[in-house]
Order: sequence, then structure tokens, then C-alpha cells
Amino acid sequence: MTNPGLSPLETLAASVKEAAKVLNITSSQQRNDAISRIAENLLLYQEEILVANAADIAAAKKNGITPAMIDRLTLTPERIIGIADACRQVISLPDPLGKADYGTTLQNGLEMVRVKVPLGVIGIIYEARPNVTVDAAVLCLKSGNACLLKGGKEAIHSNMAFTKVMAQSLAEAGLPTHCVGLIEDTSRETATQMMRLNGYLDVLIPRGGAGLIRAVVENATVPVIETGVGNCHIYVDDGADLTMAVDIIDNAKTSRPSVCNAVETILVHEAIAEEFLPLLKERLDRHQVAWRGCKKTQTILGTVIQPATEADYATEYNDYIICCKVVQHMEEAIAHIDQYSTRHSEAILTNDYRRSQEFTRRVDAAAVYVNASTRFTDGGEFGFGAEIGISTQKLHARGPMGLEQLTSWKYILRGNGQTRQ
Amino acid sequence: MTNPGLSPLETLAASVKEAAKVLNITSSQQRNDAISRIAENLLLYQEEILVANAADIAAAKKNGITPAMIDRLTLTPERIIGIADACRQVISLPDPLGKADYGTTLQNGLEMVRVKVPLGVIGIIYEARPNVTVDAAVLCLKSGNACLLKGGKEAIHSNMAFTKVMAQSLAEAGLPTHCVGLIEDTSRETATQMMRLNGYLDVLIPRGGAGLIRAVVENATVPVIETGVGNCHIYVDDGADLTMAVDIIDNAKTSRPSVCNAVETILVHEAIAEEFLPLLKERLDRHQVAWRGCKKTQTILGTVIQPATEADYATEYNDYIICCKVVQHMEEAIAHIDQYSTRHSEAILTNDYRRSQEFTRRVDAAAVYVNASTRFTDGGEFGFGAEIGISTQKLHARGPMGLEQLTSWKYILRGNGQTRQ
Repeated sequence: MTNPGLSPLETLAASVKEAAKVLNITSSQQRNDAISRIAENLLLYQEEILVANAADIAAAKKNGITPAMIDRLTLTPERIIGIADACRQVISLPDPLGKADYGTTLQNGLEMVRVKVPLGVIGIIYEARPNVTVDAAVLCLKSGNACLLKGGKEAIHSNMAFTKVMAQSLAEAGLPTHCVGLIEDTSRETATQMMRLNGYLDVLIPRGGAGLIRAVVENATVPVIETGVGNCHIYVDDGADLTMAVDIIDNAKTSRPSVCNAVETILVHEAIAEEFLPLLKERLDRHQVAWRGCKKTQTILGTVIQPATEADYATEYNDYIICCKVVQHMEEAIAHIDQYSTRHSEAILTNDYRRSQEFTRRVDAAAVYVNASTRFTDGGEFGFGAEIGISTQKLHARGPMGLEQLTSWKYILRGNGQTRQ
Repeated sequence: MTNPGLSPLETLAASVKEAAKVLNITSSQQRNDAISRIAENLLLYQEEILVANAADIAAAKKNGITPAMIDRLTLTPERIIGIADACRQVISLPDPLGKADYGTTLQNGLEMVRVKVPLGVIGIIYEARPNVTVDAAVLCLKSGNACLLKGGKEAIHSNMAFTKVMAQSLAEAGLPTHCVGLIEDTSRETATQMMRLNGYLDVLIPRGGAGLIRAVVENATVPVIETGVGNCHIYVDDGADLTMAVDIIDNAKTSRPSVCNAVETILVHEAIAEEFLPLLKERLDRHQVAWRGCKKTQTILGTVIQPATEADYATEYNDYIICCKVVQHMEEAIAHIDQYSTRHSEAILTNDYRRSQEFTRRVDAAAVYVNASTRFTDGGEFGFGAEIGISTQKLHARGPMGLEQLTSWKYILRGNGQTRQ
């Protein structure tokens, strides 16, 4: 039943919205059953998925895509097993729905309870990572949400194959196939239309680089949760344990430079800079980390160090590049963080109790660390079991977003004729 | 210290943002002290406030503003006492900040705690109700947030007088005067610029009619919380207690038709329509309520009833007007609500247990009632002590927004050298 007044995108979105209404009244067991069938069918139909993925890879190679991007695009039997395993892990997580987190009986006898409900329809817009198609859809399903997905054009065949498998699994579980909707038209115009699907989308979550996030914030009229841009800092206070500081910064920079919780800029107290920076440089040299430094950094480490510009400080390189600024005191470090932070993860390394307290209180970020690597900001590490992204905004969700963050609430009030005075 | 690269609006917003940083590290006591001084100074300087308000009223009368709007614009000594009393009530509410609502020690020994923090800078855009200037500012202060206010141009003198009193009170309490910022330029262009103050505003809350909300949703690039549009329904099931139903609908329609939790459309089961509608009409006639009805309503009540159009069903009249549709069953009622509801407050009147459960589960709204008036959706009635608005969206806040909904959280992780494997 198509409404002739609707665009193809709206028609799809309307089907997804209808599916969300059905999903809203399913039991946890039904939703887990659907996810379980997805896990099974991913393995059963892996051949079809791999063939579709091969088409994407062939096209990507023809278009001269970078090897790193091709790696992210590539599916293998092992990776499909990994995706299926992730589905099974989601099944084992507690159902975030139906919990009553607040309730009371009003003076007039009205019984009020606030219960967790799904958000409804979650839009997710992402880049050429086909695994996100399944990961995100399954987290939405588990939390009772339908989803409308738009992945990068490079992964369209893989995404369509995954969506086909999920639709079949949903049908087998007795749920509407449109609980998971994929936008097959990967044009920019359609992306912009998606961002303005008020009345269909309850929230839009962009997952990807700074450019994608910016485009969504700029163009969306539906509510957005910004995710994943991490220009993270570590401030090394005077009196910090320098051996520990070398280990932590090495970990935060080089254990996985491409991720949002990796450190980008270090701020070093001038009292220890002369002793500390050569130690750190020696360690980071093992990974060929390139430095960008302030004048004092250059004075200490030599002019082989490139100067750090304002643009460097503002950039999330996601690479083996580190910026370094020597500061006079914590005040200057906090001011720098205030100016450049994307409010994702920030750390102080110190042995001063008062400053540790002041830093955690004053620095405005989703996660603030004392004497630990910023790399821990992650749903799995935080014990949430799974995450759909890391929110860098303050509304609704902040930091790693688990199932809990994919819910809203509803007040239910049961009475026997109450009217307001 | 003004930055020559910033517009006047950005300069103001930057001052408010700086004030928010100070506010973030104040104690509950300091913030309560500031609010207490505001309450005192409102009375001390009421003469100045009333003179400013008289200028607004004189201009409004010259511009032919409606009596209802003039009433909302008007301040009197009694109303100022009421505003001061409301400030004192906010002081008595518990501090929403600093609470740790989640915490654990990770396997590696990292101590993690999630604490409630202010949102930062809250933008509020509203119409010609000068009391909102103080009410909103005080709720923001209590919850540690700075605010940037933009009220209707008709109230500009009153708003400036209120803001002056608040600035002096803040200074007396040792807080930055820009904890409360008022945009004095009431042009539409400035309003649009305000909606795009990314980097300064953490959230924008529009308080006003549907037109204002729509303009904000359409133009804002900062996160928005939609409030206050209530196209509310009451479904009268067959077997409902009809005497109770008359009382509830009378209350929901006529006790205060101008507010968002008043009912706009009733949906009546066909099995009882013939008995019920004349009873209801007789009661509503006492308040000269005008009816818009479906064909069946017209058949029962006579063709003196105007026909209800699609536009009627979609309109929040906020007036002594009621729409009525006779439905075949609850299914049709839920479908109607799905189509026209603004997801504010919806009610079922029934004696059928199963349907009461199904209605509350399936109807998607901030508050869903069984056998009670929709008029209870309100921060005060819900026991929140105060409210800054009633959110009709699902992200971050839903329903009445108290102090709790003006907070975000932050994860603090304290370690002793942890690095990620």
C-alpha cells in the first residue's frame, strides 16, 4: 500500500515507522529470537554476503580507494563469524525496556509510573563499514527500535545482502521485515532528505568522521546525537610519575591511533618538560610518531620537530601524529582543552590530589581521567556490553551509548475519575 | 575584553559561556544564595520593574495587541510577589547536581563514577511573558547552568528590568552577572542567529506556540528540546462510566482551555455515542464550547454541529472548541491518535482491563492516562516542584522537565597508571 503523495524515501520511512509500532509491543523473547535467527542466517548465507562484498571491493579498487578503507570494507568468513558472535552477545544483555525507574501515587490517588520505552525509529548514517549495518540494526532491535540505515555507497552491495538476510530472519521470527530499513539510494540528496524526515525519525545518529557529523548537524531538522569525534588531550602535571606518563601516552597514542579515544595533543608542565619530553620521544620513536610542537617543545627536542599550528591543535589526526604544548600550569592546560577539546575524553597525569579533583570537576568532557589512558572510553570497557557510538554531546546520552541510551520513557497514570482542581 | 571577530550576539554568548564555567564549580549554597537575592531584589526594585512593564503595555496597546496577550504581558505587585515566591520555592528543591547515579570499579582497578553535571549554557526563546525571564533563569541557576534568554519583543522593557535586577543579585552573591544573558535585539534575524550558536549553546528550548517551535526545529543547528504543543485526545470506550467521562472531559476541556494539556479531540466508541454525546454536550454547553464533529456526531447531536475537517483534527485550538469523532473500536481511536497526536498527553476512559493495558502500551505519548483528566501533565502535579517546560520529544527529556532534566553527566575515572590492552 503506497501513498502516492510520498517520495520513495518517505514510503520506506513510513513502512519502518509502522514496523516500529509492532516492535513496540513485542516481548524481549521475540526480539531475542529475531536476533538469534540473524546470527544463524549470517552464517547460512555467508556465501551470498561474500559475493556481494566482492562486488563492492572490486568497485572500490577501480575507484582507487585507500587500502585502509578497503580493509574496513572487506568481509571474510572470520569477520562474518565475528559479526554473528556480536549478535549473540547482544542477546545475552539485559532488556533495557519496560523498567519502571520512577513511580509514585499522587495525593489525589493517581498511580503514576515512568517506564522505559523504545525511541521509535532510529536513523543511522554511516560510512563504508558494512559491519555497522548488522551491529547497529541488532542493537536497535534489542532495544525495541526500528531503524532506517544509510551506509556509504562503497558498501551498498554488502549492505543490501546483510539487509536481505536480516529481513528474512525478521520474517522467520514473525516480525515485520521493515524493522530494519536500508536506504539503497546512496546519493547526497537522499542523505539530506533523510536528515529532514521529521515525523518519521525520532533520532538520527551519524557514525563517521568529522565531515559527516558536521553535515548532519548543519542540515538535520530531526534530533541528532553527535558521536565519535575525539580531539583528546593528556595533561602531564609536574610531579607526575614520569615512567607511568610515558606508558600512558604511548598507549593512548599508539595502541590504536585511528580511533576516537586516542590522544591527539599532550600538554606538559614546564617544570618537568625538559626531563620528560626526551623520554617520551624515545618511546614514541619506536612507532615513528611524528611530532608537532610549540616553541618550547622545539627548544627541548630540537627543530626536527615541526611547529604546531592552531590548525594542528584543532585537528583529530587519527594517525601516528602527536601535538605537544609546554604549559606554565594546569590553568593553561585547562584553557587549551576548553578551546580545542571535542569533549570526548581528557586526562590529567598527576600526583597532586587537589589538582586531580579540580581537573575532573572543571574539564567538560564525556570522560575525564586521572592517571589512566584515554583509550578506555568505550562501551565494552565501561561494562555496557555493546555500544552504538560514543556521544560527544550533552543531551540524552554522553559518552559510550549502550542499549539504555536507545530508550526514552513514558509516564503512565492510572486513575478512577481524577480531575484537576 | 571583546574579540573583534565576534558579532555582538557572539560576544554576549561568549560571556555567558565564561559565566557557565564559573557556575559549574559553585556550591549549591552559592547558587541558592543568588536565587534568594533575586527574590529579595524583585520586591526591592519592583517600582522600576513596574515602570518598565508599563512602557511595554503602552506600546502593546498602541500596536493593537489582543487583551489576552496584554494580560500575559502585565505585571502587578501581586504577580511580582508570586514570581519572588516561585524563586524561594526553587531554593527549597534538592540540588540536581553532583549525584553519582552509576559507578563501578573496572577489572583493571579503574574507579569509574558517573556524576550529574550542568548542561552548560541553555538558550531559551519565548514569547511575551515576562515572568518566564525570571522563572527560567532561576531554574537554570539552580541546576548550575548559565542561560541566554530571548523573549518576545513586546516584553523587552520588562525583560531588561528583570535582567538588571538578576545581574545585581548575581554580583551581590559573588557570581558573574552574565550567568543570565538577555538578548536585547528582538529581531527575527537575531533569533535565527541564536539558533545557530553552536559552540556556545548546549541546548535551545523554545517555549511558545506551534509557530515558534516549528521555526526553531527548522532553523536550529544546536540541539533543541521541543516543548509544549499538545494536541491531546480522550478516547471514551464502550462500557466507560459515562458520568465519570462527562466530568473528566469537562475538566480536560474547560478548566483551562489555553494550556497544552487541555483536550482537543474526543474519540467516542459507537456503542455508547448515542447515550453519551447528548450528556456531554449538555455539560459543555455551560461553557459555550463549540463542537466540530464527524458525520456520526452530527447525526446524533444534530447538524448545528459544524463538520470536523482534517485541519480541525490537526489543530491545537487552545480554546473552547472540541472535536468529536465516533469510532468503531479502540483500534480506530489509536490509529487516529497515531496520526494527529503531538505525543503530549492521551487518555482512555474504560472499564475494560485488557484495553486499558493495550492503550497505555501502544499509545506513544509523554503521558498516557486511564480514567483521569489529561490536565495533570505538569511538573507541579507530577511532584517535580517546578518545570521549565513540557517536552514532547523523546530524546533527553519527555514530559514535564524539572531540574533533573537540565543536567547531563560526566564519567570520572581515577586510576594509577592503567593502559588498555
